[in-house]
Amino acid sequence: MSHTTKNKTRLLARVRRLKGQMEAIERSLENEAPCGEVLNLVASVRGAVNGLTVELIEDHIREHVSNPDSDDDADRAQGAAELIDVVRTYLK
Amino acid sequence: MSHTTKNKTRLLARVRRLKGQMEAIERSLENEAPCGEVLNLVASVRGAVNGLTVELIEDHIREHVSNPDSDDDADRAQGAAELIDVVRTYLK
Amino acid sequence: MSHTTKNKTRLLARVRRLKGQMEAIERSLENEAPCGEVLNLVASVRGAVNGLTVELIEDHIREHVSNPDSDDDADRAQGAAELIDVVRTYLK
Amino acid sequence: MSHTTKNKTRLLARVRRLKGQMEAIERSLENEAPCGEVLNLVASVRGAVNGLTVELIEDHIREHVSNPDSDDDADRAQGAAELIDVVRTYLK
Repeated sequence: MSHTTKNKTRLLARVRRLKGQMEAIERSLENEAPCGEVLNLVASVRGAVNGLTVELIEDHIREHVSNPDSDDDADRAQGAAELIDVVRTYLK
Repeated sequence: MSHTTKNKTRLLARVRRLKGQMEAIERSLENEAPCGEVLNLVASVRGAVNGLTVELIEDHIREHVSNPDSDDDADRAQGAAELIDVVRTYLK
Repeated sequence: MSHTTKNKTRLLARVRRLKGQMEAIERSLENEAPCGEVLNLVASVRGAVNGLTVELIEDHIREHVSNPDSDDDADRAQGAAELIDVVRTYLK
Repeated sequence: MSHTTKNKTRLLARVRRLKGQMEAIERSLENEAPCGEVLNLVASVRGAVNGLTVELIEDHIREHVSNPDSDDDADRAQGAAELIDVVRTYLK
């Protein structure tokens, strides 16, 4: 089972929200909204894509490399926990 | 007229392509694709969002601040041309 | 006069601080500090480099394109002010 | 032994090169170089900091979580190899 399966519902909700945000950008362009407004919508999408990326990478670490909450090897568990923190810091 | 109006067709095409890419991510999650595949799709979206951002900012500079191709003030035209290069370098 | 001249003192202080942060990373590696600690120092440098970039681009806009505080053309002044906001949002 | 120890020489060389790049920025500001030139130097530093980050994270994965070249658990080895690819893609 893929990491994308286990957290499928949550990830799908994120992606559908992102699709809704893309549609809001589409409408803002069709309605000739001020460009500052369009840029703000795009900045939100950018943040949401980063958030989705972090969640996918974190799931990948937990399910395919090491889950810090259940790995019997305490050193590896700690290394994985630190890694998840680093991914959150650098990709947000 | 807003900068989003003048280049409306081109920007709308970009946004609709991005919506299609979001739908591909949605399908990959529904079909439980391997996470590496999902992450590759998300990386493409990230690049496309950056490209859209650069285009919106460049349009904003040209239409609301200074268009290097038509500004009568040669110093400002050069400053604007350099600025557009910088935006492309830093946001790509 | 270049934009780097006018705000020279402030920019130099930023750059020297960054050099000090690089030296702290150098020492942490020499002293074999835990990698989490090294990565935190590098994350700070990353933030500081982004801050320096934003300041340089903002100075460039104000001195070579349009200064929103003194431009007689009100539309261009507003366009430049919005542009500075956008640069801050996207590069931070 | 920390991951920063094993690859200490290579990482230190990278950090010293970065310090040299910071000194070049310092000189360019002192000499009132054109701002385009300063911004190009800063863009190089930005790239070099990203490269250092990727190397530190990759070392961390190999030494504290799973080394794809030597992990006996083939699934985890593959998960770690994919993770290293993802880190390179997203942080470069």
